[in-house]
Amino acid sequence: MKQPLLMDIRSTVFLREEKLIIIDRRLFPSQINELMCSDYEQAAQAIEDMAVQGAGDIAITAGYGLYLAARALEQNNCGSMRNAREYFQAPYQRLINTRPTGHHLKALLDKILTGLNDRESWSAQILKGINKAIQKQNERSQLTGRWAEQVLDDGDTILTHCFPGPALLHMLYMAAANQKRIQVIASETRPYLQGARLTAWSVSELGIPVTLISDNMAAYCMSRGMVSKVFTAADRIAQDGTVANKVGTFQLALSAQYHEIPVYILGYGGPDRGCNNASEIPIEIRDPNEVLYCAGIKITGEKVQGFYPAFDLTPPALLTAIITDRGMFIPAFIHEYWVSRA
Amino acid sequence: MKQPLLMDIRSTVFLREEKLIIIDRRLFPSQINELMCSDYEQAAQAIEDMAVQGAGDIAITAGYGLYLAARALEQNNCGSMRNAREYFQAPYQRLINTRPTGHHLKALLDKILTGLNDRESWSAQILKGINKAIQKQNERSQLTGRWAEQVLDDGDTILTHCFPGPALLHMLYMAAANQKRIQVIASETRPYLQGARLTAWSVSELGIPVTLISDNMAAYCMSRGMVSKVFTAADRIAQDGTVANKVGTFQLALSAQYHEIPVYILGYGGPDRGCNNASEIPIEIRDPNEVLYCAGIKITGEKVQGFYPAFDLTPPALLTAIITDRGMFIPAFIHEYWVSRA
Repeated sequence: MKQPLLMDIRSTVFLREEKLIIIDRRLFPSQINELMCSDYEQAAQAIEDMAVQGAGDIAITAGYGLYLAARALEQNNCGSMRNAREYFQAPYQRLINTRPTGHHLKALLDKILTGLNDRESWSAQILKGINKAIQKQNERSQLTGRWAEQVLDDGDTILTHCFPGPALLHMLYMAAANQKRIQVIASETRPYLQGARLTAWSVSELGIPVTLISDNMAAYCMSRGMVSKVFTAADRIAQDGTVANKVGTFQLALSAQYHEIPVYILGYGGPDRGCNNASEIPIEIRDPNEVLYCAGIKITGEKVQGFYPAFDLTPPALLTAIITDRGMFIPAFIHEYWVSRA
Repeated sequence: MKQPLLMDIRSTVFLREEKLIIIDRRLFPSQINELMCSDYEQAAQAIEDMAVQGAGDIAITAGYGLYLAARALEQNNCGSMRNAREYFQAPYQRLINTRPTGHHLKALLDKILTGLNDRESWSAQILKGINKAIQKQNERSQLTGRWAEQVLDDGDTILTHCFPGPALLHMLYMAAANQKRIQVIASETRPYLQGARLTAWSVSELGIPVTLISDNMAAYCMSRGMVSKVFTAADRIAQDGTVANKVGTFQLALSAQYHEIPVYILGYGGPDRGCNNASEIPIEIRDPNEVLYCAGIKITGEKVQGFYPAFDLTPPALLTAIITDRGMFIPAFIHEYWVSRA
């Protein structure tokens, strides 16, 4: 079984000759194009423009943004610990402001900056921090996928929204290895079409049957008995089990509840410890033009406004379970993640 | 206040020099292009390809298809009543098979063909039948719009899906005349984007503020208190109040129910008398390629299938009222339309 490109971030976000290379996700799967970032501003721009997406992957990309900032400094003079916090203030602020809804980005930058010392160059320390985070993320994806695979039954058709990341692919990979015949329905996920371009493509690369629908067709498919389980990821999980994920997740969960179809969240590394509930999750509002255009073509009249909330919030009562690297949790008790065994 | 192009079918579907002219709705609003149909096959093709849409408007277009078939006969020899049914069998079958979910098309052709006599040319009789239907439809749109306007409150923001037809525009027109400040949120309605191209554009032509969202954003907007009422049309209403409408209506109604937001159906001429319930409404499944492409560009991998149900079914319990030319009905009692005063 071939491993899809998006199963490991090291295939699509990496350093080459002191530059950050991003395989531009906005062009998948029709083109595999490299985007080159020479400084942290370009890395921030790539995150904002969604050349890279997914809470974990944008965190790694932001980490590389910090690395580029450290290298720029080292090529001129050598900073000392006294001004590390001060020096990194501008790149840190620029990077954490790119996409406010997910929490992994800020968490990773905080962790890296807090650990900096003067015994080694900052860039080397940042790179170690990034590599450690990548390894941790890959482990979490595999473990989450393994737990999730246990809820799959032979013959299931699962419905997904947006791109739930590598845990979904690990889950499907392991299900196939266990002789479970699984099919996937992917909702296209307007306006960026991640479901069509990333999920459906990656699943098809695994050799698993996958069908694409528009975002408005999910309830119809459920009403016709075409869906056994719903799986999405989460950009942030609050301690009370509220899930922030790509806009559309909420209404998918409402349709699933009506049809008594279980909804599973691939929760990777668990909730955001610093976030108690929905009111503490900022929803990113993106450029309205992204809704007013489709594939570069203006789809409505000149006097029409657009509105583009990038995420929505699904209350824990609509979810069956949050599946993490530490196992499955009842959504309202996801805070127990922190007292569970790693 | 300017009257939008789509407020009266006579502006977009009409005869000119013995040809049927359709202003192609697939190109609105970026282009106003004429599509010319010389025979019933071309008219059927235009309906199938959605150059025209909306249950009432495709019925009128099909009527013109019959007219073109009659003219073709008259230009060769003159048929007699003995073979009218036989002669029209092929065009009738072709036309009613174009779009099976709505019932107006078949109802209109049945009515016209049943009434044919030998006292006058068939084409003249068909044309009279079409003109009578257009007049009836325009009256129904105005009456439905007038009843619907009564449920609007000053300051309302209404959410719509697909293009609910002229009754929506009449409703908004009258609300403005009555000094009610109304705003509209239109969901784009993939894959054909009728919400973006037809609804949002037409509403903006009325000078009413309108905001476009993707189909997956409705529940988020409701959760933020941005929506006071939901309005859609219906392609067919069963006698038990089940509503067949553009796919996505069902999940919109589920989201509205959760948020306790009323859902109104613009029901024009009432239910289909020959249809008892959901099981008697065929759902049109369209070409999967229409989902796999967006604005002419393939949006997913080569091995991905597509699925395109064009309509879905919303049970009456999720609806607040069905508003017709004869007034408002409780959805489960929509069959009372037939005993109510015209």
